[in-house]
Amino acid sequence: MPTDALPTLSALSDRPATRREFLIKSSALGALAPFALTACDIDKPEQRTGAAGGSTAAAPPPAGPATAVRNPDSKLDTGGHANVHQSTAAVGGNQKVAFRRFDPALPPVSPDRTVKIQFTAQEVPIRISDDTVISAWTFDGDIPGPIVHVKQGDTVDFTLVNQGAIPHSMDFHSAQIDPKVAFRSVNPGQPISYTFRAKYPGAFLYHCGTSPVLMHIGSGMVGAIIVDPPSPLPAAKEFVLVQSEYYLGAAKAGVMPFDYTKMLATLPDYVVFNGRPTQYMTAPLTVKVGDRVRFYVVNSGPTHPCNFHVVGEQFDTVYLGAPPSVPLRGVQTFGVAPGGGMVFEMLADIPGEFVFVNHGFGHGQKGAIGILNVEA
Amino acid sequence: MPTDALPTLSALSDRPATRREFLIKSSALGALAPFALTACDIDKPEQRTGAAGGSTAAAPPPAGPATAVRNPDSKLDTGGHANVHQSTAAVGGNQKVAFRRFDPALPPVSPDRTVKIQFTAQEVPIRISDDTVISAWTFDGDIPGPIVHVKQGDTVDFTLVNQGAIPHSMDFHSAQIDPKVAFRSVNPGQPISYTFRAKYPGAFLYHCGTSPVLMHIGSGMVGAIIVDPPSPLPAAKEFVLVQSEYYLGAAKAGVMPFDYTKMLATLPDYVVFNGRPTQYMTAPLTVKVGDRVRFYVVNSGPTHPCNFHVVGEQFDTVYLGAPPSVPLRGVQTFGVAPGGGMVFEMLADIPGEFVFVNHGFGHGQKGAIGILNVEA
Amino acid sequence: MPTDALPTLSALSDRPATRREFLIKSSALGALAPFALTACDIDKPEQRTGAAGGSTAAAPPPAGPATAVRNPDSKLDTGGHANVHQSTAAVGGNQKVAFRRFDPALPPVSPDRTVKIQFTAQEVPIRISDDTVISAWTFDGDIPGPIVHVKQGDTVDFTLVNQGAIPHSMDFHSAQIDPKVAFRSVNPGQPISYTFRAKYPGAFLYHCGTSPVLMHIGSGMVGAIIVDPPSPLPAAKEFVLVQSEYYLGAAKAGVMPFDYTKMLATLPDYVVFNGRPTQYMTAPLTVKVGDRVRFYVVNSGPTHPCNFHVVGEQFDTVYLGAPPSVPLRGVQTFGVAPGGGMVFEMLADIPGEFVFVNHGFGHGQKGAIGILNVEA
Repeated sequence: MPTDALPTLSALSDRPATRREFLIKSSALGALAPFALTACDIDKPEQRTGAAGGSTAAAPPPAGPATAVRNPDSKLDTGGHANVHQSTAAVGGNQKVAFRRFDPALPPVSPDRTVKIQFTAQEVPIRISDDTVISAWTFDGDIPGPIVHVKQGDTVDFTLVNQGAIPHSMDFHSAQIDPKVAFRSVNPGQPISYTFRAKYPGAFLYHCGTSPVLMHIGSGMVGAIIVDPPSPLPAAKEFVLVQSEYYLGAAKAGVMPFDYTKMLATLPDYVVFNGRPTQYMTAPLTVKVGDRVRFYVVNSGPTHPCNFHVVGEQFDTVYLGAPPSVPLRGVQTFGVAPGGGMVFEMLADIPGEFVFVNHGFGHGQKGAIGILNVEA
Repeated sequence: MPTDALPTLSALSDRPATRREFLIKSSALGALAPFALTACDIDKPEQRTGAAGGSTAAAPPPAGPATAVRNPDSKLDTGGHANVHQSTAAVGGNQKVAFRRFDPALPPVSPDRTVKIQFTAQEVPIRISDDTVISAWTFDGDIPGPIVHVKQGDTVDFTLVNQGAIPHSMDFHSAQIDPKVAFRSVNPGQPISYTFRAKYPGAFLYHCGTSPVLMHIGSGMVGAIIVDPPSPLPAAKEFVLVQSEYYLGAAKAGVMPFDYTKMLATLPDYVVFNGRPTQYMTAPLTVKVGDRVRFYVVNSGPTHPCNFHVVGEQFDTVYLGAPPSVPLRGVQTFGVAPGGGMVFEMLADIPGEFVFVNHGFGHGQKGAIGILNVEA
Repeated sequence: MPTDALPTLSALSDRPATRREFLIKSSALGALAPFALTACDIDKPEQRTGAAGGSTAAAPPPAGPATAVRNPDSKLDTGGHANVHQSTAAVGGNQKVAFRRFDPALPPVSPDRTVKIQFTAQEVPIRISDDTVISAWTFDGDIPGPIVHVKQGDTVDFTLVNQGAIPHSMDFHSAQIDPKVAFRSVNPGQPISYTFRAKYPGAFLYHCGTSPVLMHIGSGMVGAIIVDPPSPLPAAKEFVLVQSEYYLGAAKAGVMPFDYTKMLATLPDYVVFNGRPTQYMTAPLTVKVGDRVRFYVVNSGPTHPCNFHVVGEQFDTVYLGAPPSVPLRGVQTFGVAPGGGMVFEMLADIPGEFVFVNHGFGHGQKGAIGILNVEA
């Protein structure tokens, strides 16, 4: 399959050393990796390859919360299922991972009505703050993955290449498609391709659906696809915010793994917009007085709502479903469900420094906060 | 009161031995039962009867979570209030309780415009999986209770007979009625009857409202009443899904009791559709290509939202309130509040195996997942 | 600034002794107060005054939940930030604090189209039940603060005077205004004034936005501003319910402080309407048969939704956003997001005793319950 010939949305060029270094380290760690591929190849002929192939020691099931009777995992797909309960850690080298702001601007809609997209599933370290590097599972090396922007009715020709050490997959919430086939897991080194038509406008989540899906969503394999309605919405400065909760274990050689047991306990360490806590406090979003501002808020969860609010402003329009139908007016805060997305609009008719937050502060204060600068 | 003459919706015939066995054992356990009826007969002349009548040792109030100052119980009704903080366990015999799939199909609407319904409140063991039997409090012996299906404007003539060991009651969310009278608790052996008119269409919860209501909802006394609008919604294959959270204590003689202290800590062991974790993974829902599919999603809670989503599909219509008003279009996921219900529709125009889930995976992955097969 | 000349909405006259006594005790406690003003006066020339001024020992950052990696605080404003992780306790004297019911009736709308309001930020003990006094941070000495009632388009001329021991501020969700200026924190003894126009109708939260905002919201600095649409909604008996979660530490000399670490663990001790658990069970709301009843439900959180429900009734109208647009019909329960507000209406056409609750009972049962009496 000529997947390398397909255009890639991600810009990996800024971290090739990191990526290569990570893969080498991962490979060396193969025998120690605390997981095994236990349910692979059930109905797919693809062959298992890569660093994890030699690992046969299955980890014990995760301890539930102290008082829990049990917490059975779901099996969301018919492909591989790895008993991985901490994300792979890239030992050492965390000093070499640079912090990078995630650009929240909605990229221009594709000029083509058939849009070719290729992502790679990658397990990489990401610096989320001066003192914290996490061991992420990603699409194209970042949390969230690349923002996709298409129009209602567009055909999306999608390919995922699994460059990770365990099975991964892709579930687009904007696709109407048989998930058993299209969203199936593929083993390391393998690609999967499928085509779908974007049926409804709105702000949709995409995520890895490999079992346990809580672990794959929770470790960073999430992103947003924005679908425009046929008649464009009013002109606006448009931003995409993907909320994620982070549940982290103790650092290994400077890199913190995602922790499945903590995900099940549902008390996150961080709640973030676009992967980094408070990144838009330091480097705010900027618009000008008179601009309409449109936030596409996608909540990857895995568990809590995103109670979206802008301090000092009110939304003149909120779309709970597909815009432009059923607009809510004059909204202060609305909860976006985990696995959901909504569109929030405001008219920036006065200058100032407006903070946007998840107003469920017990969780939201752990990083889901940023500044929108409205310049005179 | 000729309650025995009223028709019974439940089909208890498949478990009489179990039921009888359970009652015998409960009776023998009377002196050991860890509860007492502390606030009965305040304003009702009904006499207390049954196995628990001889129990006078009040249990200590439940320990709150470790750091809690206190967690006062509410008093939702003026009838009996039993200090029961674990559901009654039927000791032994759990091998004899067979697993039974809960049929999610919406039953046909009653041909009569006055619908007579009689439920019994029963405390029974229920097998929810190969290795797990729970000590449930139920309507008619199952979680959820029987699905009720009427039309807007219908009169419902309802009777509850309490065959349990402690007070119970019935609160229909589809009823407009004085709850102090109609939803009052009745003691073991006693019936209560009332009549209401189904005022609004939609998917409504019913539940036991006896104090502490958290314990009675949390132990399984929940179900759904579906009310059709006067002009029928478009023809569809219709399913009812009642989400419940299970908080279980250590098994006693093979049966796990519901645990009130864990309910207050709000971290469930299971989250289920229609009483059993992942039952519709093994025995999926089935429709044909071209069918419209309508899910009546009722969330009994007691605490968390049901973030309903179908993998590989989108809802063309979601009704947050009474259908057919205010339809949302193109929805990926919407949160149904605990104590609430919503209607989700999709057009099954492609074949495949579509997984429906609570997309709040920290909780939802604990069993709130099933398959909708769309056959070509 | 002639702030003393401005009209005050609150009625402090019923507790001057308490207030004075509290201030004296607070002053005496100055050297022991477990906090320091660490980030004051960054960009404001106001001088620090009051009891806390002499305190220089910064408390250690709060321990996160046992397994947490970290829980960074956000910095929601550019003013003062006090590392206070328990609300100030008024030692002794708790026997002298009388219980007072919070009147939930919506006060009449101001006859003036420019409405002058002055609040004082006060740290006071409040008796919330026979055996519980809490160390609250408040607007005008109560939780919630005074209910404000204006019309869409009205100008609100607001002044806050900080009579507390640490910085405070005011964030009106009904205001469109630069929060960096208007919602900035002011030090003890200082006032802040700003003017805004109420742009949208609805039920809006106001709260202290001083960092950490979780602590200031969580300790009681919340309230409701109700904004009428230009064309009045149908005549109704109108009530305002502000839901708050309480996270309390061990009592000191009979007064329980709010506890920041518990707020971060998100398991509240109480969930209350208008500041006191179950106050409207003892002293119900009362209307007459035939009345339309309108609840303005504002959820201050800080974390959980308010799943509002009236037992034995259904809402004929729910406004998720600005009334009268997009009315939902026939709703049993809807979740109000933390930081949000919604309007719930029902027609009280039968007499009875109707219980209103947060139907998310794991939290709601901890006090968010009351009675609406519909008299024949």
